[in-house]
Amino acid sequence: MKIRAATGADHDAIWNIFHETIATGDTYAFDPKMSRQEALAYWFRADTHAYVAEKDGRVGGTYILRPNQLGPGSHVANAAFMVASDAQRSGVGRSMAKHCLDEARRMGFRAMQFNFVVSTNTPAIHLWEQLGFKIVGTLPGAFHHPEKGYVDVYVMYRSLLED
Amino acid sequence: MKIRAATGADHDAIWNIFHETIATGDTYAFDPKMSRQEALAYWFRADTHAYVAEKDGRVGGTYILRPNQLGPGSHVANAAFMVASDAQRSGVGRSMAKHCLDEARRMGFRAMQFNFVVSTNTPAIHLWEQLGFKIVGTLPGAFHHPEKGYVDVYVMYRSLLED
Repeated sequence: MKIRAATGADHDAIWNIFHETIATGDTYAFDPKMSRQEALAYWFRADTHAYVAEKDGRVGGTYILRPNQLGPGSHVANAAFMVASDAQRSGVGRSMAKHCLDEARRMGFRAMQFNFVVSTNTPAIHLWEQLGFKIVGTLPGAFHHPEKGYVDVYVMYRSLLED
Repeated sequence: MKIRAATGADHDAIWNIFHETIATGDTYAFDPKMSRQEALAYWFRADTHAYVAEKDGRVGGTYILRPNQLGPGSHVANAAFMVASDAQRSGVGRSMAKHCLDEARRMGFRAMQFNFVVSTNTPAIHLWEQLGFKIVGTLPGAFHHPEKGYVDVYVMYRSLLED
């Protein structure tokens, strides 16, 4: 698997993954009807580094890395990950996450924070915990799940200074 | 004191308050050198309701109210408050906070979340606790304080459904 910076040539692949990810409405706080233009504007924002994971010349996942806050909060990174439905459980997510932690360290970030991990998204939570993240906050009922109704959301955090 | 929706005629007053608030660099994760244009773009973003508190025809404070997340997270409000240095301790902050909670309920928000309350900002934390907010998360060292170095940041949250 090759993980590299995303380019304009990846827009179609990224939009396909983005769209199928938000269409289910069970993991991300995006409007499932978000347009391609809005999605790509978000993914390629000026302060954001976007990456794709390629396997056999096909994009199986994408992630972004950026400062979570400005100025005196800009030493903490934020990231978001999306894996194509037909590439789930193939290790793409884990590979991107490790790549992301390395990139964040390389850029000098001191920590990484996920602001909005839906508590019913157990595969993601397990992966983040395996990679050293801890739940540092719980937002009661902050996500409206299409089947489960209002469910909690976790804030997850890890230092990048140790190990 | 009169609290009302902000208009273009309030831009100067808002920028003055915004600028002096972020210049100290000890409460907000904004670059202290943020430009007037960037600041007003942030305060008057398309998804944002901006307000001012007026006393004797003078703007002593300003606040914004908006959804904290999109789509399945958009039932939780976010807000930010700034008080002019010469209007501190005059009750402007508390009046705006109460107004904001009423507005958020009126708009149908189910809860309110502050993503980034610097732990050294004790007056703000006390006010939020008095108004029913709880610390639901702690971000270790997530703010670089100009004198105290890396300090913790709190995530604070309250339901708008009770009482």
